[in-house]
Amino acid sequence: MLIVMHHSATDKDIAKVKSVITSMGLKPVAIPGAERTAIGVIGNQGWVEDAPLKGLKGILEIIHVTKAYKLVGRDFHPSDTVVRLGGNVKAGGKSPLLLIAGPCAVESREQLIKTALFLKELGVPVLRGGAYKPRTSPHSFQGLREEGIDLLAEVKREAGILVVTEVMSPEHVVAVAEKVDILQVGARNMQNFDLLKEVGKTRRPVILKRGLSATVEEWLSSAEYILLEGNPDVILCERGIRTFETATRNTADLSVIPLVKAASHLPIIFDPSHATGKRSLVSPMALAAVVTGAHGVMVEVHPDPEHALSDGPQSLHFREFEELQRQIMALEGFMKNLKEQG
Amino acid sequence: MLIVMHHSATDKDIAKVKSVITSMGLKPVAIPGAERTAIGVIGNQGWVEDAPLKGLKGILEIIHVTKAYKLVGRDFHPSDTVVRLGGNVKAGGKSPLLLIAGPCAVESREQLIKTALFLKELGVPVLRGGAYKPRTSPHSFQGLREEGIDLLAEVKREAGILVVTEVMSPEHVVAVAEKVDILQVGARNMQNFDLLKEVGKTRRPVILKRGLSATVEEWLSSAEYILLEGNPDVILCERGIRTFETATRNTADLSVIPLVKAASHLPIIFDPSHATGKRSLVSPMALAAVVTGAHGVMVEVHPDPEHALSDGPQSLHFREFEELQRQIMALEGFMKNLKEQG
Amino acid sequence: MLIVMHHSATDKDIAKVKSVITSMGLKPVAIPGAERTAIGVIGNQGWVEDAPLKGLKGILEIIHVTKAYKLVGRDFHPSDTVVRLGGNVKAGGKSPLLLIAGPCAVESREQLIKTALFLKELGVPVLRGGAYKPRTSPHSFQGLREEGIDLLAEVKREAGILVVTEVMSPEHVVAVAEKVDILQVGARNMQNFDLLKEVGKTRRPVILKRGLSATVEEWLSSAEYILLEGNPDVILCERGIRTFETATRNTADLSVIPLVKAASHLPIIFDPSHATGKRSLVSPMALAAVVTGAHGVMVEVHPDPEHALSDGPQSLHFREFEELQRQIMALEGFMKNLKEQG
Amino acid sequence: MLIVMHHSATDKDIAKVKSVITSMGLKPVAIPGAERTAIGVIGNQGWVEDAPLKGLKGILEIIHVTKAYKLVGRDFHPSDTVVRLGGNVKAGGKSPLLLIAGPCAVESREQLIKTALFLKELGVPVLRGGAYKPRTSPHSFQGLREEGIDLLAEVKREAGILVVTEVMSPEHVVAVAEKVDILQVGARNMQNFDLLKEVGKTRRPVILKRGLSATVEEWLSSAEYILLEGNPDVILCERGIRTFETATRNTADLSVIPLVKAASHLPIIFDPSHATGKRSLVSPMALAAVVTGAHGVMVEVHPDPEHALSDGPQSLHFREFEELQRQIMALEGFMKNLKEQG
Repeated sequence: MLIVMHHSATDKDIAKVKSVITSMGLKPVAIPGAERTAIGVIGNQGWVEDAPLKGLKGILEIIHVTKAYKLVGRDFHPSDTVVRLGGNVKAGGKSPLLLIAGPCAVESREQLIKTALFLKELGVPVLRGGAYKPRTSPHSFQGLREEGIDLLAEVKREAGILVVTEVMSPEHVVAVAEKVDILQVGARNMQNFDLLKEVGKTRRPVILKRGLSATVEEWLSSAEYILLEGNPDVILCERGIRTFETATRNTADLSVIPLVKAASHLPIIFDPSHATGKRSLVSPMALAAVVTGAHGVMVEVHPDPEHALSDGPQSLHFREFEELQRQIMALEGFMKNLKEQG
Repeated sequence: MLIVMHHSATDKDIAKVKSVITSMGLKPVAIPGAERTAIGVIGNQGWVEDAPLKGLKGILEIIHVTKAYKLVGRDFHPSDTVVRLGGNVKAGGKSPLLLIAGPCAVESREQLIKTALFLKELGVPVLRGGAYKPRTSPHSFQGLREEGIDLLAEVKREAGILVVTEVMSPEHVVAVAEKVDILQVGARNMQNFDLLKEVGKTRRPVILKRGLSATVEEWLSSAEYILLEGNPDVILCERGIRTFETATRNTADLSVIPLVKAASHLPIIFDPSHATGKRSLVSPMALAAVVTGAHGVMVEVHPDPEHALSDGPQSLHFREFEELQRQIMALEGFMKNLKEQG
Repeated sequence: MLIVMHHSATDKDIAKVKSVITSMGLKPVAIPGAERTAIGVIGNQGWVEDAPLKGLKGILEIIHVTKAYKLVGRDFHPSDTVVRLGGNVKAGGKSPLLLIAGPCAVESREQLIKTALFLKELGVPVLRGGAYKPRTSPHSFQGLREEGIDLLAEVKREAGILVVTEVMSPEHVVAVAEKVDILQVGARNMQNFDLLKEVGKTRRPVILKRGLSATVEEWLSSAEYILLEGNPDVILCERGIRTFETATRNTADLSVIPLVKAASHLPIIFDPSHATGKRSLVSPMALAAVVTGAHGVMVEVHPDPEHALSDGPQSLHFREFEELQRQIMALEGFMKNLKEQG
Repeated sequence: MLIVMHHSATDKDIAKVKSVITSMGLKPVAIPGAERTAIGVIGNQGWVEDAPLKGLKGILEIIHVTKAYKLVGRDFHPSDTVVRLGGNVKAGGKSPLLLIAGPCAVESREQLIKTALFLKELGVPVLRGGAYKPRTSPHSFQGLREEGIDLLAEVKREAGILVVTEVMSPEHVVAVAEKVDILQVGARNMQNFDLLKEVGKTRRPVILKRGLSATVEEWLSSAEYILLEGNPDVILCERGIRTFETATRNTADLSVIPLVKAASHLPIIFDPSHATGKRSLVSPMALAAVVTGAHGVMVEVHPDPEHALSDGPQSLHFREFEELQRQIMALEGFMKNLKEQG
């Protein structure tokens, strides 16, 4: 931690800051400058709560050198985490690109089984489907809830496919974790800390979506909540952020993929459906994510998008998804060769 | 609802859209234009799910005329809601401006009782204090939790002051609602829909903070969740939004106060502490909110901000708060006269 | 300047950074920490270009202690700047609150003279009117341009009122400066640096609007361009920033008023018309700005807003403006007393 | 245009709106709804100024069906524009991907000639180099200006490479256009309308960068200014937008590439250097842009980034650029095959 003193700070102000640092069990080191003095803090073993310092007279700025997270960072865990999802399906490191697909909302047994069999045949290892649906308006379809979870469990058995679904409330976590393979924490719940702790107590891998206005630092700190509870299997998922632009539903921030891969050992995947909100943009952005190094892609696909109860306009038709899968797989192979030749 | 067709839409496209509208039990009315055709939808009794329409060929845009909320809007409830908080303390309508103050986090019995007695003496009717603390980093102080709730209940009895505290998890709602007077839903949980439903089932007034990147429409829709469960006593609280500007912690959006008052009958208050993140900005922005018509102000005050475990730099000292209260009360009276003279 | 080294930086990396600092004619001071080393830079007489350092191996972060501006800051110019606008009209410091009003666009001699006489009678010292209009679409009305400037000059003479108008291009500055009293640089041109330099060469006061997505630091740096050319008479004008919220045209950021007043000695005024885009929000936000300490308010007023060629929906009717002026003046007096009693 | 009336609008309000529409020479068509009435406007031959309508009583919302631009849209110009840059170098349509590279700022004859020869040898057809530099602080290096333009002209002759440089002021346009092949309008000047008109009068192709907070609609409208003056050769350039995220310099919005290609016939390229601000992110994002369908990529490359006077940390070293070029070319070929197989 570095404390930058104001240009007009007095010797007394500086002495006071130093004494508070000492009272915190740390060591202050003054760095006099032409216009200002800065004070370095030595001796901390991690994040320092700056609360005792913040209000002191004469301080211009407090700069944290240590990050708000530790377990998810590469500093103390340099090698990639590979998350095992079930069977021999894995995410992260050098694992093959992970494809997850399925409808936004579980609507019926027929819809789900149709989608599962389609994906199974294509070799897509994981089916996504929302049973608990976070909707802006209470007047919109809220999902089939418990019934939807049971349908997912049934389809999982019958089609032999892994399933992932969103949990919205801590009290549902244990029950849902018994029936599905992977838990998802949605963008609106990225800072629902009790929910993070609860999924952190399970043995299920967790897909953690980035919040609508979450910085990378906040996102990784939310992952830290899960790891700290003992669950190391977190997969980060970029799904677009909220900006001033309204031509797309969100703004896909693909640059976080290489950025997060450098900062953290956790796998990171991309959801082009929510990131764009438009069917025509899903495939180009999914391919772009592959090129930036994403460990996987999660896509909304529906047997009949025109009649989907949620997110129809951003869901791919089966034939569109099939073509996208072909392109993704070819591109994955191409990129592997390209890097090796470099 | 209005469906705007693309310039190149064919007669067949238009016929298809009309037939889908009819199949939804509604009535389509075509409005031909020089460059494009639009189709009006008649016969709906509220919000129309546009999912069946969204993917159809030839549609340029779908425009909703009906809003995503109904109970919280003035359209069908023109008169102001006045929320009773306990004793003769009220918020909204022509009630006197509501002052809420207290520390960000409950830290100790001593800190809390000291603050409560100070506020009580000043005539401030409601004490705020966080027991469950949403913190970005799991390594930061997480609040005293159950112990903090008990301290609030004790102080409430001893000082005879109303208390408000944040709930972060649906499972805590019933227990917390038994011990405090008012529940708060924080900015990070504004779209924690299960939490909204749970507080909607209690008989306690709820302060609903605006999310960091929530539009007015989303905020009011979240309030709708609470009202729909049978709890009409919601107080909206603007606390700043997240923008590109980093000179302040958030960007205080005071224009939503008159805007929301026109759109909704619910009371709206302002939190200048989180909106700015800087002690020096708290008082000017609190006064500004009074002028825009806020029904109340919620301020962080601490007996010793320099040693606060959370949000010290934005907390007022007792003497600063006392001066602010004096100014707010004088300004409230002045504004009342000013409007009457107009 | 402080250079924070990466946790894994080697002694060689650190030595290299130090030698580059030395080669820049400055002095490096190492501050070893438990997890990382930081290097302070001493000896600079102002802003240091960090380009030679930025690419060096092992650097985690470079922190500037010195600001990007100097002349506009309070550090070296603590007392308020008072800008003389003409006659005995002034802005800043303890001067009376400055009221500027008029139509978005100059449309006709009749419209302008009518407005000028109305304002003159009310005692409003400055008339605003746009002759060169920055419009998103080239198909929208572009302003009367030279003809509009001549009308402003005529009305200025006839009504005996000061006039302010926007300049959009460096080549117009000299000609416009001869005919009007105050120049305005609009939000879209806040970083049109050649324009800033050109108005900096005139003897006319300049109203510098904040850019749509400009940070406070960038805004003050733009003002620095003007001062650096020798023109000290800059008035800053907050007019709302662009955020995700679409319920208002922009998001009024009132907290910058006290913030900028602490950082800079320049006067700062507020434009509630562009900040909100809605007539119903103009008056409450104008009054709020007065309370936060704005040195003035600039409002759009039009004899017939329903037929205005630009910004009609955010322009006040004469009678509304008259009422607003009454309220502003009363509030200004009230606030003065309020502060003195504190 | 569609006018949505408020739920409480009276018959008189509706009649008034209709009569104003009629007085504008257009035809109103009422569309009664269950809760509200909407009024369609027929008969316009393009964009309708809504100013006369905006202030009318009872109007809830005015919706424009016609866009703010026309010449740049595909509606009336469906086939791709191919811009000829000089020699046989082209951008847009089915032309080979356009590579532009060079330093942020022209610093010296040696730096420029070294870069030009390097690029020439690699077969890169266009050199970029800034002579007029828009810098936030007036204390930063402002570019070599006229001298820099002359250096570009000299290098263009000697190395036989096309050159592009930024113009910041209308008065420089003619002189600069005589010496370089392509003009650039920077992000900060995207709404410098006099500059747009001036480059619109030249015969030089123009690269128009997206503004920091410009919507797609505003960006295309700025291009419309150039086309309307008679210059059809505009190349759009996405360079990242400003958001709340500070981990990258800007947020690269790659989804606008397929989005803009669907809306406009103009070529669109991507600048990964400014979009990310970090060297390590430049290559992955450049490749991602190729996959989304960008017509070209513009990259900052410098013989000695560590000593660059501007943007060093985001500039590639020669060897990095060479590797990137190899990857881009391979990827371009791969993508072409991939699409053909589909």
